[in-house]
Amino acid sequence: MSEMPNRTVLLTGFAPFGGETCNPSWDAVQALDGETIEGHRIVARWLPVEFGASLVALRQAIHELAPSLVICVGQAGGRAQISLERVAINVDDARIPDNTGAQPVDEPIAQDGPAAYFTGLPIKAMLAALRAAGIPAEISQTAGTYVCNHVFYGLMHALRNVPAVRGGFVHIPYAPAQAALHPGAPSLPPSVVSDGLRLAVAVALTVERDARIAAGATH
Amino acid sequence: MSEMPNRTVLLTGFAPFGGETCNPSWDAVQALDGETIEGHRIVARWLPVEFGASLVALRQAIHELAPSLVICVGQAGGRAQISLERVAINVDDARIPDNTGAQPVDEPIAQDGPAAYFTGLPIKAMLAALRAAGIPAEISQTAGTYVCNHVFYGLMHALRNVPAVRGGFVHIPYAPAQAALHPGAPSLPPSVVSDGLRLAVAVALTVERDARIAAGATH
Amino acid sequence: MSEMPNRTVLLTGFAPFGGETCNPSWDAVQALDGETIEGHRIVARWLPVEFGASLVALRQAIHELAPSLVICVGQAGGRAQISLERVAINVDDARIPDNTGAQPVDEPIAQDGPAAYFTGLPIKAMLAALRAAGIPAEISQTAGTYVCNHVFYGLMHALRNVPAVRGGFVHIPYAPAQAALHPGAPSLPPSVVSDGLRLAVAVALTVERDARIAAGATH
Amino acid sequence: MSEMPNRTVLLTGFAPFGGETCNPSWDAVQALDGETIEGHRIVARWLPVEFGASLVALRQAIHELAPSLVICVGQAGGRAQISLERVAINVDDARIPDNTGAQPVDEPIAQDGPAAYFTGLPIKAMLAALRAAGIPAEISQTAGTYVCNHVFYGLMHALRNVPAVRGGFVHIPYAPAQAALHPGAPSLPPSVVSDGLRLAVAVALTVERDARIAAGATH
Repeated sequence: MSEMPNRTVLLTGFAPFGGETCNPSWDAVQALDGETIEGHRIVARWLPVEFGASLVALRQAIHELAPSLVICVGQAGGRAQISLERVAINVDDARIPDNTGAQPVDEPIAQDGPAAYFTGLPIKAMLAALRAAGIPAEISQTAGTYVCNHVFYGLMHALRNVPAVRGGFVHIPYAPAQAALHPGAPSLPPSVVSDGLRLAVAVALTVERDARIAAGATH
Repeated sequence: MSEMPNRTVLLTGFAPFGGETCNPSWDAVQALDGETIEGHRIVARWLPVEFGASLVALRQAIHELAPSLVICVGQAGGRAQISLERVAINVDDARIPDNTGAQPVDEPIAQDGPAAYFTGLPIKAMLAALRAAGIPAEISQTAGTYVCNHVFYGLMHALRNVPAVRGGFVHIPYAPAQAALHPGAPSLPPSVVSDGLRLAVAVALTVERDARIAAGATH
Repeated sequence: MSEMPNRTVLLTGFAPFGGETCNPSWDAVQALDGETIEGHRIVARWLPVEFGASLVALRQAIHELAPSLVICVGQAGGRAQISLERVAINVDDARIPDNTGAQPVDEPIAQDGPAAYFTGLPIKAMLAALRAAGIPAEISQTAGTYVCNHVFYGLMHALRNVPAVRGGFVHIPYAPAQAALHPGAPSLPPSVVSDGLRLAVAVALTVERDARIAAGATH
Repeated sequence: MSEMPNRTVLLTGFAPFGGETCNPSWDAVQALDGETIEGHRIVARWLPVEFGASLVALRQAIHELAPSLVICVGQAGGRAQISLERVAINVDDARIPDNTGAQPVDEPIAQDGPAAYFTGLPIKAMLAALRAAGIPAEISQTAGTYVCNHVFYGLMHALRNVPAVRGGFVHIPYAPAQAALHPGAPSLPPSVVSDGLRLAVAVALTVERDARIAAGATH
């Protein structure tokens, strides 16, 4: 990140994991690849569901593209709405192994990093824009402790001294075809998610100061 | 119902209720109005969210159209998948008033009717077809005790001596635009629901004997 | 049931099933065995989690004891409150095998029985009494399609011509010790459940006509 | 905290809030007041549900008592198990006003504090001990953004340079009497919670190095 960020937006999606054959996060960002939003070119990149290697790939893509905005997207099977993540925490605690079989428990992501980073995205303004457009969205107070949080924390750690580049993380529900195999599970079609991400990118590129909207949790 | 049923399928949707400005059940069935499925013409009709009047309108439509298949569709805000209802029970117990302000408590729908009717639809075959098509669906063991169950019970009561006509009820989730106003609520787009209903109608018109698939609940 | 019912209350609980090592329904009713409530002696009996055999045991106990009130109690792992069941339906649809390995799918419980029976208990009055006593309780619109519903339906079928005997079914949550093995699962201690059942029995023995309290479900 | 910590454990509970007439966190810690656990005297203190004032009261109690262990306890209405909180974040975002009417949105708790602090408690060892004792418990990845998180963050901030003193936060479910007013809500009796806290305190006083047990969340 020695160079000036250019008019590129990096969106990342993940490989399938946990027994799934697809990952809607990749489908959703891939659909936006090559589009232009607010004068910025969208580039979609794929990340493996692996502790460590996911961050290597992410940092490589950032180095190569020098984007001015990075939004990493991941699947949150069981959640019902697009989740704008507020905070990444400095711990890996894997309930299930990653795609290489690694299962770290209570290990820091960055040995000397702080306990957490807040998102660099204007998530309240994004929330308002998505809801106004009829797209179900919510603020999430935790991105978990698996590869998604790992990538989110690693992203914010990589950008900690690069104030010109905004970054953050968005969780999305199962696609309907996945939910069809999980009785009772909620879902959103990739097209709805793509519309939501398009809007989220536009807000992140144009809203300097975040909106002041209560969207916290009592616990 | 003195005449022979003809090659018509009646689909009903409801008016908005409970503070909503639309009802996705009407959007979903209206989209199919006029289509032809398995040689049958689809006719969509609108029902009020009113104890009593909803059934008058339903019986009128059945009398007028003499359909060979009737599927009533209703909104189940909070459910995540298309719910194929198994059973209608002979009781109104309204947690909230209907659109005229009526709020019956523990009153029978048909004074001399049986405690319940099972659906006339091959819901297990429908379930299998929907899931195979990647559309999230489930069997539901209760349609509640509000206007949806009222219409479902009234439908089965009206058809009790008309074995040539199949009938049943399907609950659907909020549309995404509704869920955008209900933090955390699941949703399905009307287009996915319409695809699901199209498939459900095709199965109901062609599958004589229901499939034998375990889809019960331990409680 | 040729004899007059006497001043006995039969409470039944179940054997463990589904991998559990205990069943809180048995613990809860066993704790009341031998007590006297409103001049009636409580007798607790144990039922196997088996389609068929559970009903044989239940009918035998009814024949032997000639109770004036029968409440069957079962575990509903995942539910959070004491569930007063409204209706039993005439179908077995087992998601998991019973304790003998039997797994009926969409088979009637009573070949010539009606689709459903409503409970014989004053469940709204019971609900009000439990809540007033600070015991979490709710009306449930479905008892599922497993052995609990099987026993509930069989009970009401056995009592269909015996108006002097009241019967019904109550589902209860996991005990805390069970929930400790199910991350996130709700529970209630057997002592709270026993207090609730004691109260429920007292109401069933003294309230002739049920209360009129809205406690239905919109779906 | 200029003095050496002595053999005292400070447990705090909260005032009622959000329309409740009691707060089970206060009932649970009050029950332990004056007990001795592992040679330490338990002192229970009450905190107001107020941004700011809650922390003033907490710091005062710490100054006065010089405890070697501080566990703050709060109500998480809707959760089903005892929640051992992993992390406190540096933000107030109040969905509902506190008991003085204050409703901060996205304001830092400590102006120059880090984004988050991890708990100082051996929560995995506590989790194992609670489950082994048959008490339902779980690790929570978020304490929300309301007064509970405010107190948790403020506690860890106050203890940041005092390695001899362990601190952390535990969320607990509604008491049954509260859940009786919230249809479907889970609960745990104060006696079960008190047993759990007693055990948690004993573990925190005796286990130096936390256990290595996977208890994370994929999202």
